[in-house]
Amino acid sequence: MNACPIPSPDDTPAEFATAARVEVEKWRDGRCEAVTDVVAEEVPIALEYNGISHAVMMATPADLEDFALGFSLTEGILADPGELYDCEIVQGAEGIQVQMNVATERFVALKEKRRNLTGRTGCGLCGAETLEQAVRHPAAVQAGALQFSAGTLHAALEAMQAQQQLQQQTGATHAAAWLGRDGKIKLVREDVGRHNALDKLIGALAEDKQDFSAGAVIITSRASYEMVQKAATVGIGFIAAISAPTALAIRLAKETDVTLIGFVRRQGHVVYAGSHRLV
Amino acid sequence: MNACPIPSPDDTPAEFATAARVEVEKWRDGRCEAVTDVVAEEVPIALEYNGISHAVMMATPADLEDFALGFSLTEGILADPGELYDCEIVQGAEGIQVQMNVATERFVALKEKRRNLTGRTGCGLCGAETLEQAVRHPAAVQAGALQFSAGTLHAALEAMQAQQQLQQQTGATHAAAWLGRDGKIKLVREDVGRHNALDKLIGALAEDKQDFSAGAVIITSRASYEMVQKAATVGIGFIAAISAPTALAIRLAKETDVTLIGFVRRQGHVVYAGSHRLV
Repeated sequence: MNACPIPSPDDTPAEFATAARVEVEKWRDGRCEAVTDVVAEEVPIALEYNGISHAVMMATPADLEDFALGFSLTEGILADPGELYDCEIVQGAEGIQVQMNVATERFVALKEKRRNLTGRTGCGLCGAETLEQAVRHPAAVQAGALQFSAGTLHAALEAMQAQQQLQQQTGATHAAAWLGRDGKIKLVREDVGRHNALDKLIGALAEDKQDFSAGAVIITSRASYEMVQKAATVGIGFIAAISAPTALAIRLAKETDVTLIGFVRRQGHVVYAGSHRLV
Repeated sequence: MNACPIPSPDDTPAEFATAARVEVEKWRDGRCEAVTDVVAEEVPIALEYNGISHAVMMATPADLEDFALGFSLTEGILADPGELYDCEIVQGAEGIQVQMNVATERFVALKEKRRNLTGRTGCGLCGAETLEQAVRHPAAVQAGALQFSAGTLHAALEAMQAQQQLQQQTGATHAAAWLGRDGKIKLVREDVGRHNALDKLIGALAEDKQDFSAGAVIITSRASYEMVQKAATVGIGFIAAISAPTALAIRLAKETDVTLIGFVRRQGHVVYAGSHRLV
């Protein structure tokens, strides 16, 4: 299997291919054909804060600076994009290290949060995770004036699909898109993981100082709890998903006044929370 | 939103509903209908070993004993089902705790592995994750004699779909199924998370002392790296996925001699690795 000569986005170092060519046997109606297929790359990405490894995620190796900033904001590690001083992308033997340098205050808070967790669980181990850490309760979003029509959402879905380059090549990636108040798709980010696609989108928007209360995210996946949690944490008030939401995601959307739409298709959609933002 | 009066599987405490009813607005061709929809539940599940919290995952609150055993085996925490002495499921304020009591030797190894990681990254923090921890290299599987025909796989896919009860109710859950050497679906497990569905299936099979080298798993999702890693770790030599694999998953499948099939449909499929197990 060879790395694919597929052009990377400008902000991705050329050495990180996002897809690979692979020889496969394609069977259809009992007949076999040997063909070259294009499959999505997937790489372990370690996120490090001030020299300390925090988490590893399997992700598409593109837009990693966006990913770093977006993850930091949606997980509540940073409160403002300006707290990320710099971000270096380093290729290691087993994956890619994203080495972030963040405000001392935020790093201390991250360390403190983890020490407290250690105390509560009495673990003294590296890597412990608790229910209290997993469940955060973001404040209600402030997106009162925002409204979209059903027609705008359906058209946006098609516009987004036309921009999912990696998905068109591989058939294996999710996307998150930003829909502006004017009904136009402003930005699309893709990843093998749906959380990562959303984090990349949010990071790119934050870097660009976009107002999170003035648009909607469209996601190609289901709307699980973590998707709503990430969006609400940065103040996004409108989520439209192609597939179904979970019950916990709906509860959180109601709690944080996020509009949550599911099963967005050309001809219809289902409103699960916040119907006041639909005209 | 109320908990749904949907019967739970026998091994799930009655208080954990796996779906909920919710009032929604269903739009189609510009017309709105207020209906009651059934959505999948999703609950934070904390896995604890000998009193120490290890990880939290968002999951469907069913078959949690299977999940506990399966996760422990596929993540290499336990080497044998007998090392799990007991498992208690406890409802907490923010989610469910799965309290496992495991062999001291395994608990010490888990603690030691984490101490070593602390040493390597110099973190001293609770929760650090490194690339070395994320990437494991399972041994090649021993499933030499195993073979399936394309027809068997296609028929198995349909048989599995007929058994996805939660998916039929909610349209939001993944499934993993076990296909016996005789071409029959032996067991199906469902979850909002695809890794969890696979862990639950593997846990149930391990509890039942099934031979992992004598069948195939069919999954309703993409075949990512972690799906192949989990299967190979317990010795499963055949994975058929409804959707696409990633490049890293294909590399690992070749490395561990796992047969990896993607895009399994009624009329065809694509072979990505290990075609010698197809007749």
